[in-house]
Amino acid sequence: MERTVVIALGGNAILGPGQEGHLEEQLANVAITMNQIADVIAEGNRVVLTHGNGPQVGAILLQNDLALGQVPAMPLDVCGAMSQGMLGYMIQQVLSNALEERDIDLSVVSLVTQATVDPDDPAFDDPAKPIGRFYSEEHAQSRAAEAGEAWIEDAGRGWRKVVPSPEPEKIVEAQAIQTLLTQGAVVICMGGGGIPVICAEGRYRGVEAVIDKDLGAERLAEDVGADVLLILTDIDNVMLDYGTPEEEALTDVTLQEAERYLQEGQFAAGSMAPKVEACLRFVRWGGDAIVTSLDRALDALQGEAGTRFAART
Amino acid sequence: MERTVVIALGGNAILGPGQEGHLEEQLANVAITMNQIADVIAEGNRVVLTHGNGPQVGAILLQNDLALGQVPAMPLDVCGAMSQGMLGYMIQQVLSNALEERDIDLSVVSLVTQATVDPDDPAFDDPAKPIGRFYSEEHAQSRAAEAGEAWIEDAGRGWRKVVPSPEPEKIVEAQAIQTLLTQGAVVICMGGGGIPVICAEGRYRGVEAVIDKDLGAERLAEDVGADVLLILTDIDNVMLDYGTPEEEALTDVTLQEAERYLQEGQFAAGSMAPKVEACLRFVRWGGDAIVTSLDRALDALQGEAGTRFAART
Repeated sequence: MERTVVIALGGNAILGPGQEGHLEEQLANVAITMNQIADVIAEGNRVVLTHGNGPQVGAILLQNDLALGQVPAMPLDVCGAMSQGMLGYMIQQVLSNALEERDIDLSVVSLVTQATVDPDDPAFDDPAKPIGRFYSEEHAQSRAAEAGEAWIEDAGRGWRKVVPSPEPEKIVEAQAIQTLLTQGAVVICMGGGGIPVICAEGRYRGVEAVIDKDLGAERLAEDVGADVLLILTDIDNVMLDYGTPEEEALTDVTLQEAERYLQEGQFAAGSMAPKVEACLRFVRWGGDAIVTSLDRALDALQGEAGTRFAART
Repeated sequence: MERTVVIALGGNAILGPGQEGHLEEQLANVAITMNQIADVIAEGNRVVLTHGNGPQVGAILLQNDLALGQVPAMPLDVCGAMSQGMLGYMIQQVLSNALEERDIDLSVVSLVTQATVDPDDPAFDDPAKPIGRFYSEEHAQSRAAEAGEAWIEDAGRGWRKVVPSPEPEKIVEAQAIQTLLTQGAVVICMGGGGIPVICAEGRYRGVEAVIDKDLGAERLAEDVGADVLLILTDIDNVMLDYGTPEEEALTDVTLQEAERYLQEGQFAAGSMAPKVEACLRFVRWGGDAIVTSLDRALDALQGEAGTRFAART
């Protein structure tokens, strides 16, 4: 019963909060994560790995800023591609080593991945996804005035640039990813949600936007015909009434329940809400979806942990 | 008569001498290059594209330097992976658009590519490949003293860091590249010669080195069983007695002739010599090899231009 599992890694899989981003830190985190992923592969699952890139793109954007005047800055789509190369390299090397320790001989490869978005997506009228580091109000206002960028004040911590977060429509490299999967490769792709591109008259071009990484992983899971979408995050289960005395861990959730909870606003926007939304979409499409922590990934795939979404339980 | 052609793009295919590296410049160069490559594909050739990354890695290294203290610097292998993501993205998008204009519907994908090197390669005792920008003697000497780096004075233009340039042994992702080729994809890989890694007891780790991009492309051509290695450079033909009144364009060259010319020192080290060496190796292995300019690529594949290497003419 070999299943194809699209795994969406959480941000902490590579860089934890408060860490500065030294390569050694990142590699140590990736090693912990890839040990678990290698166990999932050892169980006979075909795996596609997707991952975030927030801290890494933040670092690249800051380097662009600090080197201005000496090195031409690259736009966000190109910085995203750089982060895909960097993280793909780290993940493929470490995962390949973890598989070798288990005497598993599989190709592990990373693909630069683009996802088309609709230029008429309403998100383009309402940039809401913060990127990069925090800056002063002065910097934010000058960038807004001079470069037409959108900036917001973020909870007293300073100002951050915001970009649109449109819906992913089609994964440009889906066919190649499926080809590799069919031949037994482990594929790393869709880093940072995929590079958002607009397709006009058959021609692609990058846009300044960020696709939600869980929604991107879901779209990919459909496009490659996966059996399971496994979203890994910091907690073992999706919670109802999170942070209150009544909080409750969800185990099996039907489509109808998930829709109701989303409507009730049970889940944080930009955090758990898109994860549950991604699961909903994948279950509607006909697959199974799970949200859990890295540590419970294997148990969750065996139906013994995590929050599992199904058309009906 | 569909042939598999590994094309090694020259540096000018993406960024010309004197250009600063603005994205628009790079994309304009890539568009010119990809128009020619699309014509090669339109003729029915299966294509693997490899490319240099010197100016791009130079820019990333400089950004690392200028952002030190605020963003942890990444070692050369990780910077190389970043450049593979960046250049892979640009090339795959532009080539895909060029194919679309020709009504050719093929997947175009970029893979992060590693190549193993021997830790006992003599190159590690003699770092000779310059990377990054020119610096002052003061900077060079302090880096040499504090970080144990090797620096050389380069023809009065300043000081540059040098790293070993070992031989490529095995392309780690060769199997996946071949799988994609077999399924009709155009594959972009081996950016910058591939990321050099050492494999010890089945475990890979990156090393600070640069693989010659033409020798890397040759190794790949063997590993994927290509028919032709096509090395593109600034001139239409390899020249004998280059720059002298006796200079002569080579058209058909046998193994024996090429070996003799190399021994005579006819070709510049780090420039034409490794290209001819790569061709020699590929012909010895059993393939055809060509050196020519981008403009003559298609004619050269049809035997009507370029310098063509064969076991015997």
